[in-house]
Parts: sequence; C-alpha cells; structure tokens
Amino acid sequence: MAPDFLLNEKMIQDLWLIGIGTGSPAHVTLEGMQALRDASIILVPQKAAGKTDLAELRHRIIAASGTAARIIGFDYPVRDPDLPYLERVNAWHDEIALRWQAALEGTPVPGPVALLVWGDPALFDSTLRIAERLTPRPKLLVVPGITAIQALTAAHAIPLNTINGAVEITTGSRLRAHGWPRGATTVVVMLDGACSFKHLDPQGLMIWWGAFLGMPEQILEHGALADVAGRIEARRTTARAEHGWIMDIYLLRRTETA
Amino acid sequence: MAPDFLLNEKMIQDLWLIGIGTGSPAHVTLEGMQALRDASIILVPQKAAGKTDLAELRHRIIAASGTAARIIGFDYPVRDPDLPYLERVNAWHDEIALRWQAALEGTPVPGPVALLVWGDPALFDSTLRIAERLTPRPKLLVVPGITAIQALTAAHAIPLNTINGAVEITTGSRLRAHGWPRGATTVVVMLDGACSFKHLDPQGLMIWWGAFLGMPEQILEHGALADVAGRIEARRTTARAEHGWIMDIYLLRRTETA
Repeated sequence: MAPDFLLNEKMIQDLWLIGIGTGSPAHVTLEGMQALRDASIILVPQKAAGKTDLAELRHRIIAASGTAARIIGFDYPVRDPDLPYLERVNAWHDEIALRWQAALEGTPVPGPVALLVWGDPALFDSTLRIAERLTPRPKLLVVPGITAIQALTAAHAIPLNTINGAVEITTGSRLRAHGWPRGATTVVVMLDGACSFKHLDPQGLMIWWGAFLGMPEQILEHGALADVAGRIEARRTTARAEHGWIMDIYLLRRTETA
Repeated sequence: MAPDFLLNEKMIQDLWLIGIGTGSPAHVTLEGMQALRDASIILVPQKAAGKTDLAELRHRIIAASGTAARIIGFDYPVRDPDLPYLERVNAWHDEIALRWQAALEGTPVPGPVALLVWGDPALFDSTLRIAERLTPRPKLLVVPGITAIQALTAAHAIPLNTINGAVEITTGSRLRAHGWPRGATTVVVMLDGACSFKHLDPQGLMIWWGAFLGMPEQILEHGALADVAGRIEARRTTARAEHGWIMDIYLLRRTETA
C-alpha cells in the first residue's frame, strides 16, 4: 500500500532541477539564479554524505540568489549494500522520491519546488530519474549547469574534442571492464574512485586530471600518462584523506604519434 | 615575413575566452558576466556569417553585463574552398589569429582581451586553437559555458547518459562515414548539416532533436527515429529557410529492447 502522504496528489505540480555547476557559486547561470528566486520551495539534502563543504556551498548559492523560497531539508537514505548494482540504485531512487514527498507533507506548496543539482541535471546525476518516480508526474523544468567536463577543460584551457573528432564519456568501472574504447581519440572518465587509468597501456596517451574543480581547493595535473599516473594517484590519495572526500575527473587523449 | 603588427609583442598578454551558452543570454554564468566586466577590451566579430540574430545576442549580453570594456570589431575571413578540409581549417585559424592582432593594432591594451564564445570554448569551437597561434602566447583564461548538449537535454528534460552508460559525442560527417558507433547506447551528434540520422537503421533507436536551443525560436522533436526522422528533416528545412541559418543537435539512444 502506498504511504498516506502520496494521497496528496497535487503536492509537486512543478519541479525545477537547477544545475549549479561543479563547486564555484560563480558557475551558476543567470537563469539558475532567477529560478532559485522564482521557486516557492527549495528541497535541500540535510547531509551530503560527509561532504559538508558541498552542503555549505549549496546554502551559499541559495543565499546569494536572494530567494524568498522556503528551504526544506530531507535526508538521503542509505544504499542497501546487499542488493546488486542496478537494483540497489533503483531502490535508492524510489526511496529518495518518497523522502521528497514526505518532506513536503503538511506543507502548503503554492508554487514550484526546486532542487539544486551539482553540475548539470543530465550528466551522471540521479535527480531526473528520481523525479520520474513521482505520482502524479510533475511538470519538469531543467536549468542546465556547467558540468565537471567543462570545468576540467576550462581549468586546463584545452579543447574537449580534436578537430572533427569524437569524444567518449565513460565511467571508471567501464574503463576497467572494457579497456580503451576501440577507435577513440578522446575519452573523459567520470565516477572513477579507483584511478582506472592505471590499467591502460599508457603508450601514446596524454592525461588531464582535475579534482575539486571550481573550488579554491582545485588541483590539476597533466602530462604523458606514463609520466604522471603515479603522481595523480598519490595526490588523489592525499587530497582525499585531507578533505574526507574527493570529486575528480580526467580526460585521456591518444596523441597522433601513438 | 610576419606582418608588422606582430612586432608589438605585448599586444595580448591575457586572453579570456568566455563561454556564453547557446542562445539565451540567461545561459551566461555569474563568472562569465564578471569576466565581461573585468575585461579591458572585447573583440567581437562584425559579421557572424549571416547570423545577425546571433550577432545581436552577443551585443545584448555585453550590454547586460554593464561592462566598460572597449568593444573592437573584426571580420571573419572567408574559408578557401579549394583546400582540403584540415588545411582549410588550419589556414582559416591562422588568418583569424592575424585579424585579432590587426584589430588591436595601434590600440592600447591595458588589460585582458575577451572573446565571447557560443556554447563552451572546449566543445567544437575553434577559439582555443586560434589562441594557440598568437605570438607570444597569451595567458589564457577559459570561462566554461552551457553547451548545446546541455541545452538539448534540459529542453527535453532527459538524462544524457543511461545508468553507468557511456556517451559518444560525434559529428554528422563521422556518423555518415562510420555508421552507428560500435557498442554505443547514447550518441550525440553535432555539426550535422545533412540529417545524417537518415542513413542509420532506425530499428530500436530513439531521437531527441532541437534547433535554436535557448532562443525564443527553439524547436524540439522526439520519438522513435523511424517515426520522426522525416518530420525532423522537414522542420529543419523549413526553419532554415525561414531564418537563413540553423543550429541544431540531436541525441540518439538505442533502447534496451532493440
């Protein structure tokens, strides 16, 4: 049986997912700031899994927008480690959708409900998938935001693609499972907690790596993969220990001479 | 022999490439607006190849920033149609770099020189490659901007990637030459003036298409490729004739049942 609070069918009529970039409040677009001001309620996670600096940043962005929206917190559930990957992700998304609704229970919702999304709502983020679970389905507005990919290429001042070249965006686990994507020139790797570049043949590969992009703590490394792989792994380990968390991303490029 | 104006070696010490998004002035980030205000000179192309709406938009963004920078125009050269593709692109980039410098000849350059870049400076844009041609090499600052990819997924309110799935960003000419990228689930196609999706086997493929993204003229289509390919081509032809130009992009996804 569905929980009682689902009976309030009109709870979220308009749901706005606002991309806020990767760590700098200045990554927010004019449209994003306006959406924060026009929102009626902003749902904010109360704990960002130990990432208190990120939680604070979210509140700084909200404050900077000058919004009069009501700020309502919700807690993220814990993922069930016993479930297989996809089931675990799906169960977690189901539970978050319920928590959004529970957080609003008993609260008048006179207008749009907004959520701040790191990076862009389309790229390796769950919020759109969670929103699809709401019944009835709210009207969605997505405000694009700067992704970690753009923050990485901007920080290194490099192009993402070669001239007329393709780009593959993939994950650390896929890179470990499948190796270098066949025929690829440029590969961007996200969600890699395991320095999966270590398992590639470094011959002819360049890497541009960044962590805490857009934040004052931003660190960058680049060079021939053979030369810098060890240094990146060491800096990543140190920075992660220091902060208690890390968000990083890298771009690999096969050089023409390879 | 290098032209005389190259002798002014200190001409551009700081060059700022500011991503301005895909057509809505509200796509500009707070950082982008601040960079426009902090720039000393803004170089603006005098003709955007017939795209006068885009040229106006650039001036609206500059005005909205409230910058006191000096605005200096330059003309884009014409590409030599007799050269092979890569040579033609390279010659064109060389010539643009010379025109930036020529536009500044005789002008005091007391601070950073800024250029407004559609979308993001890293994604299918030449500005970074042109900047590399300047002698001496200026200090580059890249301000990330919203890409057409994010504007597309936001307009359709869809995720870019499937869960833990890879994404391939490619061009129309590559799609025509190589067909569907082997093993790909999600493919984003840019720079496609020829509706190259027509040449794919549509079985199991969904498409999300958008043109004039972020602008009041924005048009969207989506559905099974088999059903909507013809409609997209027709709308594209009509819209292009009406505006005199078109910028469009699409995302193709292989559905799990394929």
